[in-house]
Amino acid sequence: MMGSLVHVGGLDLEQALNTKGIDGSILGDELQRIGFAGPMPVGTIKPRAYLELHIEQGPVLEAEGISIGAVEDLQGISWQEITINGVANHAGTTPTRLRHDAGLAAARINTFLRDQLASTSASTVATVGSIEFQPNVINVIPSQATLTVDLRDPDEARLKSAEAQLEEYLEKLAQQEAVTISIRRLARFEPVQFDSKLVASIEQAAEQRQLSCRRMTSGAGHDAQMMARICPAAIIFVPSKDGISHNPGEYTDAQSLLQGSSVLLEVVRKLVAGSMA
Amino acid sequence: MMGSLVHVGGLDLEQALNTKGIDGSILGDELQRIGFAGPMPVGTIKPRAYLELHIEQGPVLEAEGISIGAVEDLQGISWQEITINGVANHAGTTPTRLRHDAGLAAARINTFLRDQLASTSASTVATVGSIEFQPNVINVIPSQATLTVDLRDPDEARLKSAEAQLEEYLEKLAQQEAVTISIRRLARFEPVQFDSKLVASIEQAAEQRQLSCRRMTSGAGHDAQMMARICPAAIIFVPSKDGISHNPGEYTDAQSLLQGSSVLLEVVRKLVAGSMA
Repeated sequence: MMGSLVHVGGLDLEQALNTKGIDGSILGDELQRIGFAGPMPVGTIKPRAYLELHIEQGPVLEAEGISIGAVEDLQGISWQEITINGVANHAGTTPTRLRHDAGLAAARINTFLRDQLASTSASTVATVGSIEFQPNVINVIPSQATLTVDLRDPDEARLKSAEAQLEEYLEKLAQQEAVTISIRRLARFEPVQFDSKLVASIEQAAEQRQLSCRRMTSGAGHDAQMMARICPAAIIFVPSKDGISHNPGEYTDAQSLLQGSSVLLEVVRKLVAGSMA
Repeated sequence: MMGSLVHVGGLDLEQALNTKGIDGSILGDELQRIGFAGPMPVGTIKPRAYLELHIEQGPVLEAEGISIGAVEDLQGISWQEITINGVANHAGTTPTRLRHDAGLAAARINTFLRDQLASTSASTVATVGSIEFQPNVINVIPSQATLTVDLRDPDEARLKSAEAQLEEYLEKLAQQEAVTISIRRLARFEPVQFDSKLVASIEQAAEQRQLSCRRMTSGAGHDAQMMARICPAAIIFVPSKDGISHNPGEYTDAQSLLQGSSVLLEVVRKLVAGSMA
């Protein structure tokens, strides 16, 4: 979403062009190389509206047998890396009461997120996607555990509340397991509300074409969330098989693609005709 | 403990000599190279008793301010590798109820071991020392988690019970989290009871030298556990700082080393004099 963020003024052009990839390549150089570095000044095009047609990248439409998603908002994202320091010790000779087990503390964070955070809020999702133990051997109590926490919620107040609850829990946990815990914030995006008239127009277009439709939240980030800063924006979702994306298994059948395109066409037609309220 | 296991007939000599190290070296070749491959046939020396003087490799003696441990038994060890298969999916778009989170299931095993197994038995210790997630990235629900479980107990019936409780829990967990779980057994040693007269003799020797002493269980493996198959055996422990071992931080002060040697000398003296009952 770097291009759209630059377009709306959220990121400096030079900074973006100087971005270095993990392979050492420079973004600006690569754009020149592939012929994508155009001459038009940033911000020249002032959109009347921004519509995005996308696969859901999630399992909801497929699971519910619904053809079209009218995306009314986009989750806020909070990414944190948590490091726990305990004491490495012999797995056989160290009594339970004398352990400072960084790996156990990491496990408690994971179950806290599921049992206390995600289960008590209908909208919050929480994921521990990556973890690493030190020294990571079978007969040594882990001295260090590093894990990532991905928290998302379409409501900023609830996302903040989830972050605060986690922080409070970590303080309690450090005491309980006699370990030290530190937090590094990796990324933070506030939730985005899309344009209510555009969302209603997507619903109407689906109805006109006798396609089942539901309002929904985007769990993934999209260019539309950046463009929403300067114009009315919304997203049309079509089902994606098993919710899989960014993976060779990603698949949406031809009929769904046609249905999504048809809804996009109808909303654009109304926008052009000025027939939207 | 390979040498002592060969000596007591628990492992074939040729098999032991052909063992390949992780660096590709062959044990027999290395013994030749360093001059340790002697000509005496295995089993030639028939010990009257076997006594081992060792640092505790655990924190108990230091924590309790006791000078000598009279080791009366040695824990049984059960090592397992558990692999959980779930489904990789987007951390933002996948509702909690539709997740098959292999990482969460791994966390639940760790907390089960602490809260249900180790906390309800005074003698069982349980450790998850190593873990690995796939694909191990911040915004993807782990499709696979592999972890090791180290279970120990000085009582074979209780160790078997712990193994059975874990197996039963894993079946329940697979259902609950909609994942599949497989177990690979890596190692299994039964607990060892040391010779009660030798253990009493260690206690008496400590008392004669006015050294505080307690009976205890060895959590780590030792040659004495192999030698106990062919002769009376026991171990004398001295404190080790913070219980740290196999690590540059391993330390036992000179006074403790002298006290342990002095107890060893006294027990050997009694054995030689035939004054043990």
